[in-house]
Amino acid sequence: MKLTISELAISLKGKLIGDGAGQISSVGPIKNANNDTITFITSNKYIPELKRSNAGAVITSQQIDDIATPQIIVTDVNTALIETLNIFAPKLQPRPAGIARSADVAPTAKVSASAYIGRNAVIADGVEIGENTIIDDGCKIGENSKIGKNCRLDCNVVVYHNCIIGNNVIIQANSVIGSTGFGYSFINGAHRLIPHNGGVIIDDFVEIGVSCCVARAKFGNTAIGAGTKIDNLVQISHNVTIGRCCLIAGQSGVAGSGKLGDGVILAGQSGVGDNVEIADGVIVGARAGVTHNITDKALLFGMPAVEKHEAFKIIALTRRLPKLVEQLNQLNKRIEKIENILKQTPD
Amino acid sequence: MKLTISELAISLKGKLIGDGAGQISSVGPIKNANNDTITFITSNKYIPELKRSNAGAVITSQQIDDIATPQIIVTDVNTALIETLNIFAPKLQPRPAGIARSADVAPTAKVSASAYIGRNAVIADGVEIGENTIIDDGCKIGENSKIGKNCRLDCNVVVYHNCIIGNNVIIQANSVIGSTGFGYSFINGAHRLIPHNGGVIIDDFVEIGVSCCVARAKFGNTAIGAGTKIDNLVQISHNVTIGRCCLIAGQSGVAGSGKLGDGVILAGQSGVGDNVEIADGVIVGARAGVTHNITDKALLFGMPAVEKHEAFKIIALTRRLPKLVEQLNQLNKRIEKIENILKQTPD
Amino acid sequence: MKLTISELAISLKGKLIGDGAGQISSVGPIKNANNDTITFITSNKYIPELKRSNAGAVITSQQIDDIATPQIIVTDVNTALIETLNIFAPKLQPRPAGIARSADVAPTAKVSASAYIGRNAVIADGVEIGENTIIDDGCKIGENSKIGKNCRLDCNVVVYHNCIIGNNVIIQANSVIGSTGFGYSFINGAHRLIPHNGGVIIDDFVEIGVSCCVARAKFGNTAIGAGTKIDNLVQISHNVTIGRCCLIAGQSGVAGSGKLGDGVILAGQSGVGDNVEIADGVIVGARAGVTHNITDKALLFGMPAVEKHEAFKIIALTRRLPKLVEQLNQLNKRIEKIENILKQTPD
Repeated sequence: MKLTISELAISLKGKLIGDGAGQISSVGPIKNANNDTITFITSNKYIPELKRSNAGAVITSQQIDDIATPQIIVTDVNTALIETLNIFAPKLQPRPAGIARSADVAPTAKVSASAYIGRNAVIADGVEIGENTIIDDGCKIGENSKIGKNCRLDCNVVVYHNCIIGNNVIIQANSVIGSTGFGYSFINGAHRLIPHNGGVIIDDFVEIGVSCCVARAKFGNTAIGAGTKIDNLVQISHNVTIGRCCLIAGQSGVAGSGKLGDGVILAGQSGVGDNVEIADGVIVGARAGVTHNITDKALLFGMPAVEKHEAFKIIALTRRLPKLVEQLNQLNKRIEKIENILKQTPD
Repeated sequence: MKLTISELAISLKGKLIGDGAGQISSVGPIKNANNDTITFITSNKYIPELKRSNAGAVITSQQIDDIATPQIIVTDVNTALIETLNIFAPKLQPRPAGIARSADVAPTAKVSASAYIGRNAVIADGVEIGENTIIDDGCKIGENSKIGKNCRLDCNVVVYHNCIIGNNVIIQANSVIGSTGFGYSFINGAHRLIPHNGGVIIDDFVEIGVSCCVARAKFGNTAIGAGTKIDNLVQISHNVTIGRCCLIAGQSGVAGSGKLGDGVILAGQSGVGDNVEIADGVIVGARAGVTHNITDKALLFGMPAVEKHEAFKIIALTRRLPKLVEQLNQLNKRIEKIENILKQTPD
Repeated sequence: MKLTISELAISLKGKLIGDGAGQISSVGPIKNANNDTITFITSNKYIPELKRSNAGAVITSQQIDDIATPQIIVTDVNTALIETLNIFAPKLQPRPAGIARSADVAPTAKVSASAYIGRNAVIADGVEIGENTIIDDGCKIGENSKIGKNCRLDCNVVVYHNCIIGNNVIIQANSVIGSTGFGYSFINGAHRLIPHNGGVIIDDFVEIGVSCCVARAKFGNTAIGAGTKIDNLVQISHNVTIGRCCLIAGQSGVAGSGKLGDGVILAGQSGVGDNVEIADGVIVGARAGVTHNITDKALLFGMPAVEKHEAFKIIALTRRLPKLVEQLNQLNKRIEKIENILKQTPD
């Protein structure tokens, strides 16, 4: 794919400043940009670097002065960047509509004619697959599960029975939805599995990464709200409720019956304890562990997680502990000295 | 599935108090229970909530006074709850006995006639699969591995060669048993893999969640004792020994040659260091990391993990550090004042 | 496989001390070694244990005095151990060259005649697979990805499009290479996925464990340097660069655009923050979290990770906090006493 800078400006509905004749064939960061690369700038602090670069053009929301590089001025750089990346995305063959010959689709399953069912995929009885949805090679969709339209389940995804997945959902390779949760009763000296009669509901525009697991509920449903995005190797345990538009980064986990509000962010390798409820908009820092309910918007760090301001103060003070011990020893010596003086003082 | 409360009482061998005519079609927690839902109560503290609910009936071990809701009095609520959940479990088609047409079973493999080998499953030479065992779609069972009876390996489970899995074992989707462990020797400037000649032994009634890995041993066997239950995304490294009836929650890991006694509990996202031995009955708290041997029953928290009492004291005191610093400063001022007074004091 | 001790000494190019007639059929640690087991010794501290053992022979780099056990003296015990383990490795059927009948190989894919493409594997258009490479059962290789020679991709590995994998690479079961990274722009109240136009480059002799994920780059490539070894359940995020000969233990993660030098070691369950750069030879301890650039070789512990010496001092002092509080209280009392004395002192 090659476009002139002028053509690109038109595509992005941007205003061209400078020469629009140059050919662009890729998009990338300022560093290492060649003259067929269009780059982008989200802050004035990168202007010096931009001036030194060979980039063929730059996407910016504000005109940059004193620069020879052709500029495309757009309303929102992030939006324009996504559009530009889409323009220069590697061209892949679209999945064809239809069912691969090696797929095994149960007679009672209802698969939209525009859906793709991949090689060796298994679609069980009572399953419904919506329009334009891609169930890629090696996926297994369990009995009575419903998957909406415009979804993409990548290779080897396993969806157990009675799960409901909305529209425009992406689940990347090897993730598992609807497995039995980790709930046991200790009876007569052994752990007995509590049957998980519930299901999983994944709402529209949810995106789930690689090798995640979303366990089914004992009762009711484990639920993930619309627009929530989940990274790789994340565990969403049984009976968890996750709000809308949350971001859950890699290797994080939410334990059984945890509840996240809307717009919650869990940074990487963080955790939320069982039955813990977290308010809308709370941000949990990397590797933090939330052990109690968080009722108001907050930025949390540490294990157990506390408010950032406090967490950072604690960290700073623990690093000052050697000095504090030294101060304590100094005070002790001064007091001893005083005590000795006072002993000598005639009563 | 619908049952009257009377029928349910008979099924559960419980004593009916109140009207047994109502129809029950599901089981669930008190909250949101409808009049066709049977709920359950494990503590008197929920009685007020129960009184306000519309539940059609309640399972309890002690008769509740002043309540209109029909009660089924049972010896053990947890046991009755499991039975009730089984009664109202979603009805799924049983896996048929036999080998799916698309499965590839080696001629020398011995598969019980009552076992199910799923679509696109691969069963290698010398494998043995016991009675009533389900090897679900897409599973791969490596050379000479033996799987007992009444087991269930869900979709896409991979078992490498020479692994031994007992009876009544459940392994959920996408887990991997018997991969090579992470053991390298640094020789001539490069890490060389140490061959893992050993295997994996998983005893009866072990249950393993989604996307776990149990690595094979260098020598001898990685071993998981009978009745141990493992959640999702857990790593059991090479040469680890896990006792009987342990509970290992999600995203936890045991490093190489670690050894857990019987009844050990690892809470979520916790870790046990390599070669670390943990005594029977030890509980490792969420996100704790055990770095040294634990010789007696204990409840551990933190990283490095220490006994709960100490861990909580440390946490509380670190949170008091700002105050301690303030106290230190106050003492300093008071000493300064004293020192000044003493300087003024005529000798 | 059985060999006499003499035959084994010749194989290992070692010097035999003692009787070489005994038959050896396995290799193992000193503990529990039988008289048909050859054991090995890497430190003199194990000599007493060796003397008590029934091992049939021992591999050592220095002759051991006063011992009846036949010895094979070698230059490097670790190398000899690997060779011995290879000799006694379980004999498995080699994967045959060729394409399994149930595999689906696109017409434009170039597969070496000596490669193995397993059952139900899917090889997309434009893929290249080198000599002697094993793409095991159920693997999916996406469009235009290139895999070198002598590689082994175990069952159910998924490689997305446009990934480049070198020679002698091992990827164990259920790992995923080249998925879309976790990069979103928040636009008009929703998280919009930033397209990931880049790829993944995995260099020669890299080994990756079970259920790992290596995400593709937004621009350019996520890159793993030659000889780097990665354990299970590890996340390598988009645009990460990892140097040569690193060791990344289980359940660790490197966040987006992180950069590791050569020879970096990440111990188990550790993490590296996004955009963090780590110098050659840095060792990150178990469960540590690196939140800022590390410019020199260091051994790090804790979250946030600090140099080991400091981390251990902090840990020790936090454990002394109860005592410090006690000391503070004692000082307070002594000062009070002094203050009272001074009050009584006639001016």
